[in-house]
Amino acid sequence: MSRSPGRRQEIHKISRELFVLTYGALVAQLCKDYEKDEDVNAYLDRMGYSIGIRLIDDFLARSAVKKCRSYSETTDMIAQVAFKMYLGVTPSVSCSSAMGNEFSLILDKNPLVDFVEELPAERASLCYCNLLCGVIRGALEMVHLAAEVTFLQDRLKGDAVTEIGITFLRKPEDRKHKR
Amino acid sequence: MSRSPGRRQEIHKISRELFVLTYGALVAQLCKDYEKDEDVNAYLDRMGYSIGIRLIDDFLARSAVKKCRSYSETTDMIAQVAFKMYLGVTPSVSCSSAMGNEFSLILDKNPLVDFVEELPAERASLCYCNLLCGVIRGALEMVHLAAEVTFLQDRLKGDAVTEIGITFLRKPEDRKHKR
Repeated sequence: MSRSPGRRQEIHKISRELFVLTYGALVAQLCKDYEKDEDVNAYLDRMGYSIGIRLIDDFLARSAVKKCRSYSETTDMIAQVAFKMYLGVTPSVSCSSAMGNEFSLILDKNPLVDFVEELPAERASLCYCNLLCGVIRGALEMVHLAAEVTFLQDRLKGDAVTEIGITFLRKPEDRKHKR
Repeated sequence: MSRSPGRRQEIHKISRELFVLTYGALVAQLCKDYEKDEDVNAYLDRMGYSIGIRLIDDFLARSAVKKCRSYSETTDMIAQVAFKMYLGVTPSVSCSSAMGNEFSLILDKNPLVDFVEELPAERASLCYCNLLCGVIRGALEMVHLAAEVTFLQDRLKGDAVTEIGITFLRKPEDRKHKR
């Protein structure tokens, strides 16, 4: 009864259910505040962005990953290390452009929607998990990678899988030239 | 890269940081929406309540705890099993009334405020973690225990510890008589 809280490394993990339900409460609040789905989506993305730019420090400190040398390596890192670390799932990755700068993270199961059966009819354009896109975008920006991150498919909308598209906007070479 | 998401029992745990930052984003949103701290506190409590009445099923299914026979046992269960399961910390418990219906959960460390240094001066009455009170209240109500749950001390406000007070409102005997 008087056990003190464990040391930091012991308390990193929490139960997913509380997070999933809290996230649901957040989305519900935004749906009350904003009439248009587009506004809710944009808000979730911005909110995710501000989370991502803070979460990246935690990620780099804890994962101790090496610097990625390509967009492909970066995307694998997001899928295999970051998603695993923060959401407990590992999306599969596919490259969807000949240019080598467009990738998809494909989730068979999206842990964030555990308690959501389907979107209400009047919220058909809602990207329920858009926070994730913002988090990825924000985190990438902090390692100097500009990217567009959007949902391409969503099981909540009847698609077979949930697919997050990442389009890297500049080549590392471009950035070097600008310095 | 094509690893499929783990089975359910493997993906129950997620990283705390994403939750803590998302919770922070939720509170920030409510502070934008409501001018008065009291309104934000009430909203967080209501939101927590609606989470608690859903989370209790998950808790009972996963913890496989036996029925509690006293308020003291119930409070110990919240501290030692529920807090541990959902937040990864174990508050200490103290009984603060001769009537045996008032208890405190005392947190040396509150995982929800990891990224919060202090409350802004204009938000001095904000109960930042009030969601937790609502969660406890909602979950207790679903096992037929009415309770008032409030923050009595808060390290964010300069107190030495964070203390959540639980006052059980009716004796089980009272309820039996009413049936």
